[in-house]
Amino acid sequence: MNLVAGCAASLQAIAARSPRVHCITNAVAMTYTANMLLAVGAVPSMSLSPDEIAAFVGRADALLVNLGTLDAARWEAIALALAAVGGKPWALDPVLADAAPPRRRYALEWLARGPTVIRGNAAEIAALSGSTEATERAAEALARSSGAVVAQTGAVDRITDGRRSITVANGHPLMARVTAMGCAGSALLAAFLAVESDPLAAAAQALLALGVAGELAAATAAGPGSLSIALLDRLYALDEATLMRWGRINQS
Amino acid sequence: MNLVAGCAASLQAIAARSPRVHCITNAVAMTYTANMLLAVGAVPSMSLSPDEIAAFVGRADALLVNLGTLDAARWEAIALALAAVGGKPWALDPVLADAAPPRRRYALEWLARGPTVIRGNAAEIAALSGSTEATERAAEALARSSGAVVAQTGAVDRITDGRRSITVANGHPLMARVTAMGCAGSALLAAFLAVESDPLAAAAQALLALGVAGELAAATAAGPGSLSIALLDRLYALDEATLMRWGRINQS
Amino acid sequence: MNLVAGCAASLQAIAARSPRVHCITNAVAMTYTANMLLAVGAVPSMSLSPDEIAAFVGRADALLVNLGTLDAARWEAIALALAAVGGKPWALDPVLADAAPPRRRYALEWLARGPTVIRGNAAEIAALSGSTEATERAAEALARSSGAVVAQTGAVDRITDGRRSITVANGHPLMARVTAMGCAGSALLAAFLAVESDPLAAAAQALLALGVAGELAAATAAGPGSLSIALLDRLYALDEATLMRWGRINQS
Repeated sequence: MNLVAGCAASLQAIAARSPRVHCITNAVAMTYTANMLLAVGAVPSMSLSPDEIAAFVGRADALLVNLGTLDAARWEAIALALAAVGGKPWALDPVLADAAPPRRRYALEWLARGPTVIRGNAAEIAALSGSTEATERAAEALARSSGAVVAQTGAVDRITDGRRSITVANGHPLMARVTAMGCAGSALLAAFLAVESDPLAAAAQALLALGVAGELAAATAAGPGSLSIALLDRLYALDEATLMRWGRINQS
Repeated sequence: MNLVAGCAASLQAIAARSPRVHCITNAVAMTYTANMLLAVGAVPSMSLSPDEIAAFVGRADALLVNLGTLDAARWEAIALALAAVGGKPWALDPVLADAAPPRRRYALEWLARGPTVIRGNAAEIAALSGSTEATERAAEALARSSGAVVAQTGAVDRITDGRRSITVANGHPLMARVTAMGCAGSALLAAFLAVESDPLAAAAQALLALGVAGELAAATAAGPGSLSIALLDRLYALDEATLMRWGRINQS
Repeated sequence: MNLVAGCAASLQAIAARSPRVHCITNAVAMTYTANMLLAVGAVPSMSLSPDEIAAFVGRADALLVNLGTLDAARWEAIALALAAVGGKPWALDPVLADAAPPRRRYALEWLARGPTVIRGNAAEIAALSGSTEATERAAEALARSSGAVVAQTGAVDRITDGRRSITVANGHPLMARVTAMGCAGSALLAAFLAVESDPLAAAAQALLALGVAGELAAATAAGPGSLSIALLDRLYALDEATLMRWGRINQS
C-alpha cells in the first residue's frame, strides 16, 4: 500500500475503532490536543493524577508523553505512565528540550525507556541527539542510537528509522502561529500508532494528514484564529481523494 | 409555565442577574466552560487554590464539581468548596467515574454530600447507581437513593427526580467531537440552578438550551472546529422563538 | 511619533524580532494568551516548573505575572520569576485582587517588586490603590505610589504614569463575553514592553491594538465564539492604515 492510501486507511481505522490515547501533555496544549484527537475519532484522556494514571494507561491504545510545562505532577505522571505502558506504542514530544537544562535531562532519561516515536523540531532533536552534525543527520543518528522512529517537523517533515526516510512537504507557515499545533500533532501521531503497526508509516501518515489539513485550512483562513478552527474541520473531513490531490510525501 | 418558556425566562434571568458560578473542573474543560458561561451572561470563576476557595464559593450563586483530571489539588478544592457551599445549589459531574476505581469512590463520597443535580452519561450514572438495571431505571434509582435530580445525557437526554421525568431530544452527534462539551454543559446547568429554583426544571432547561444551540450550530458547521465556535454564538443569541421552533422537550 | 504610528511600529518590531514573553498566568487563560502572542509574532512560554523558571525568564524579553487561579505552584513560580527578571520589563495583572483577601495581599507584595505596568479593571486597581477616591484618581494615585504605569481597562481604557495619561476608546462590549480577554491583553502588553522602551506608550499601544482588533472582529461576529477567533485574525493582520482609520486614542 502506498503512503497516501495507508494514511486514508489509518484514518478509517481510527474512525471505526475509536482508539484511546492517554496524553500527558502541557497545560497550554490540552484542549486543542483533545479536539484534534476527537476530530479524527480517537478518544483522549488527560488525567495526571497519580492514583488514576495506571487505570487510564491500561485502557488506552497509545500514550503521548509531552514535556511542555513540565512540573512535579507531570514528572510523576510520566514515570507512572511509563511503568504501565507495557508493549503499547508511545510517542515522546521533547518540547523545548533545547531551552532548559533540566528538561533535556528528563527527555534523555525517558528516551532511554524506548519510545516508539520521537516527534520534535530540529532544535529539540539536535538537543537529544547530542550530535554536532547537520540536522538531517542528527535525526538519523538519534533514530539509530535510540531505536525509535524520529519525526522531525519543519517546513519539510523528515521521518526516519535510521535506515529508511520519508519526507512530507505539506503544511503552511501560519500553522506555527497557533499554539500547541506541534503538541497536538504528536498526539495525532500516537492515535495513528494505535492502528498502524509500522511506526515509520504511522508517523509519516499522521504528519501527512496534519499537513494537508493545515494547508487546506490556511488556503481559506483570514489568520491564525480561523486557521486553528478550519484545521479541525479539515481533519474531520479528510479522505483519500483529498490526500491524493494534495499530499506531497516521498520515501527515500 | 411550560418548559420552553421556562428556559427562555431562565436565560433572560441569567443575562439580567449575571450569576456567579464557581467551577472546580478539569484542566481540559476550563476555557470552553468559562466561554459557555460567559456566552449566556453568567460569570465564571475557577480558582482551585485552598486559601481562596471559600471566598470564591462564598461570592458564587452556584457551584460545579467536575471530576475530570482529578488530582490532589482538585480533590482538596472540592472538599473545601463543599464545606463552603451551604445551601447554594451545586451540580456534580462524575466524569469517567466508570473508568478508574478511585474516581468512582470519590464520586460516591461527594454524592453523599447532596448535590442538587448529577449530570453524566449512561456509563457514569450506572457506575454511581450501583444498579444492574437498564440505564433508564439506573437514573431513576440514583435520583431516589441520592435525593438529587439526575440528568443523564445522550442521544436523548433524560432528566429525573425519581418521580417526574423530562426528555430532551435535541443536540447533534458532532457535539461529541468537541472536548468538554458535556463538562461545559454541566456548568451551564449550574448557572440555570442559580436562577430557577426547581432543579428538575433548571436541568432540563439547560440541556434544552445546549441541545438547541448545538443542533443549530451543527446545521451550518463544516466540522467539530466550527461547531464549537458556532455553538457559543448560538447560545449567546438564543431566544424564546428559536427554542419554540426547535425544542423537542417532553415531560412524562 | 504619534501614538498610532508608534503602535504600528511596535507591531512591526514584534513581527521582526519575535520577542519571547514568559507568562505565569491562570489555567483558563493559557491557550488564548499563547494564541494572542503568536498572532502578533511574539513567542510565548508558560512553564510554572520551579526548576525551569529561571531558564525561561532568562531567555525571555518580557514577563507577565497574572494572579488568576493562584495556587501554590503559581505562587512559587512568581517568586522565582521575579528573582530572575532582573531589569527586564514585566507586567502585573492583579486578576480579581478585589475578590479574595489572600490574593490582594499577594498582589500588594508583588506590586512592591516594581512591575513596569499594572493592567487591571477599575475594581482591581481600586483594591490595590487602597484609595477611596474615584477610580480615575485611583489609577493615578497607584501609578504615583508604585512607580509603575497603570493601565486601567474598561469601556474606555486609561493609561497613566501618574503625570501623563492616555485614553483608548476602542473595543466592544462583546469582548467581555470571551474568557481571558483581559489576561491575554496583559500578555500582549508585555510583548509591546519588549520592543517599546517607554512603558506608557507600550501599554497604550497594546490596548489600542487589542481594542481595534476586537472592534473590527465584533463588527462581523455572530457572537462571542466567532469574536474570539476573528480577533486573533484581526490582530495578525493589523496595520497602520487600519489603526489610523479606527483608532480612538488621546493623550491628555
